[in-house]
Amino acid sequence: MIVDELLKKPGAWLSRDDEPGIILSSRVRLARNVRGVPFPAQARADERIRSCATLRDACNSVPSLVHPFFFDMGSLDPLDKAILKERRLISRELAEKGEGSGLIVAENENTAIMINEEDHLRLQAISPGADILSVWKRVDAVDTELESKIDYAFSPRLGYLTSCPSNVGTGLRASVMLHLPGLHLQGEAEAVVRGLGKIGLAVRGLFGEGSQAFGSMFQVSNQVTLGQDEESIIKHLVTVIEEVVGHERNARMRLLENRRAIVMDKVARAVGILAKARMLSSGEAVELLSMLRMGVEFGVVTGVRLPEINEIMLTTQPGHLQKTEKQTLGPMERDEVRAEIVRRRMSDLGFTGD
Amino acid sequence: MIVDELLKKPGAWLSRDDEPGIILSSRVRLARNVRGVPFPAQARADERIRSCATLRDACNSVPSLVHPFFFDMGSLDPLDKAILKERRLISRELAEKGEGSGLIVAENENTAIMINEEDHLRLQAISPGADILSVWKRVDAVDTELESKIDYAFSPRLGYLTSCPSNVGTGLRASVMLHLPGLHLQGEAEAVVRGLGKIGLAVRGLFGEGSQAFGSMFQVSNQVTLGQDEESIIKHLVTVIEEVVGHERNARMRLLENRRAIVMDKVARAVGILAKARMLSSGEAVELLSMLRMGVEFGVVTGVRLPEINEIMLTTQPGHLQKTEKQTLGPMERDEVRAEIVRRRMSDLGFTGD
Repeated sequence: MIVDELLKKPGAWLSRDDEPGIILSSRVRLARNVRGVPFPAQARADERIRSCATLRDACNSVPSLVHPFFFDMGSLDPLDKAILKERRLISRELAEKGEGSGLIVAENENTAIMINEEDHLRLQAISPGADILSVWKRVDAVDTELESKIDYAFSPRLGYLTSCPSNVGTGLRASVMLHLPGLHLQGEAEAVVRGLGKIGLAVRGLFGEGSQAFGSMFQVSNQVTLGQDEESIIKHLVTVIEEVVGHERNARMRLLENRRAIVMDKVARAVGILAKARMLSSGEAVELLSMLRMGVEFGVVTGVRLPEINEIMLTTQPGHLQKTEKQTLGPMERDEVRAEIVRRRMSDLGFTGD
Repeated sequence: MIVDELLKKPGAWLSRDDEPGIILSSRVRLARNVRGVPFPAQARADERIRSCATLRDACNSVPSLVHPFFFDMGSLDPLDKAILKERRLISRELAEKGEGSGLIVAENENTAIMINEEDHLRLQAISPGADILSVWKRVDAVDTELESKIDYAFSPRLGYLTSCPSNVGTGLRASVMLHLPGLHLQGEAEAVVRGLGKIGLAVRGLFGEGSQAFGSMFQVSNQVTLGQDEESIIKHLVTVIEEVVGHERNARMRLLENRRAIVMDKVARAVGILAKARMLSSGEAVELLSMLRMGVEFGVVTGVRLPEINEIMLTTQPGHLQKTEKQTLGPMERDEVRAEIVRRRMSDLGFTGD
């Protein structure tokens, strides 16, 4: 399989069905290391290459990973790496590695293992919608199967040992991607984010660097991995997310009751600009598609379904865009091509702009 | 005639024909006062009422003012005054006056006289396009006719005497309204404005308070009225404006050559938003209509003519809007009604938004 094959399908975290709309996706990853082998950052290049080969063989034979494929960070070009990042299969850290690091991914992209990123193994599973418990079960099965082949670095007192102390214990990070335009437009998103921080959860944006949240999309995850078992961590996250979803529902209701004209205006402008613009940055595209998505979720836009919006959002990311166009493009050219693709898709959907 | 009658026609300064595009309109006004009568600000209320009646009779009998009509500032409501302001027939200062101040306007709105604004008389003529010389001749004819009926306050040494020293001399202010999107988008408008200031010309925006220039529209006028005859003042203005028009043409050419994608994007977005928005402030409407106008002037938008854009710009001003809707509206309601009118007009023109 080459990276191009991935482009024929939507990302695993982007549903093909209409999901409820507030929870975009659920994700769990486990950090694992091999006893007696130096952590990747401490290992010599030849040690990393050797451990990567061993781990690759182990992962390839795990039954839960259906039709696994290996991507070698030493042989992928920057564009292919960008695509894997945009599909949320690899981290920025792994993309920066070369030979001796890689990715094993199941054919359907919903389960994957990063090899020699910060830890020897980063097991990860993702699903669209609010599915954190079954996602956890999926990654847990891979973990159990691997544990029979690999001698994990484990301390009876601390739990799983990891390169960064913040992952010691369960090595688990569970995260949920939320679309919170209601709280955002009501000016209440910041307070919610602050509140989540106070109860030990981390919040970051989906697209964009650092904490910038384009398109009212927020990723919420646990920070504590030590001193609690996996189920407690996940149950806590699920409970909190249910509360946030309740706040968002409430905010949406209030918006539609009290500020309907503003909502309608934002949605209508997004449609107008998406259908007409000749240059679109990826940040603005995400913002506008988020508004269109809100319009669908609020029932004020018809003629487009959420999976179609998801798909436009993914295919207009810089890596996907350039791969589809079969050429490396500068930022200005990308903005022009992006606008052209979006215009064509909007036109296909019946939003012609005039 | 009531103010409503005016709404049936475009403003005199907004052409019904396609004008060249850079010079929107030309305007000349003369400040005149009556010898031996206190300036309006110094006069008692009864003196102002008496002088207003006398001046009204004198103005009404001037042959150049065809079918003149008198508007009494004491009996117009704020909405009617707003409409006269938006049609550029009265100043903000005159609108704030009551009984004892008024406006005489020719039926076609191209010539008018404000009575008891800052001066006893403010003779004004306006035309669309680059027509400053014939506008000057028109107002000069009215002035000559009035001078046979009124004993003007005149000093052989200083010229015409006025309430504010800045108008003493010729009492003349000639101004030209320019649409400078080329210089604006090239980031050169500010330098041009500064340059005009250095050679004794004043620059302000068309819409908006103070010096804010919405929609790249700038009004350029002489500041000096003393020590030069009328023709020299006007010739100087004409020469300078020709230079500015040359700069704008050059900027437009460079824009289309080097930054065509950005121009196309700005125009296309303007069309998209105008066709779709559900709320539009008057400032944003002017900005977007200016971009649409640029599209027509640049030949990249078809299906709409400049007079149609002019007309949308005027009828969506707050006063015109409320008069047409036959009700007083708050700012939010105005923004909704404005967007609705603009959407309808865009749709009539074939820009349906989807």
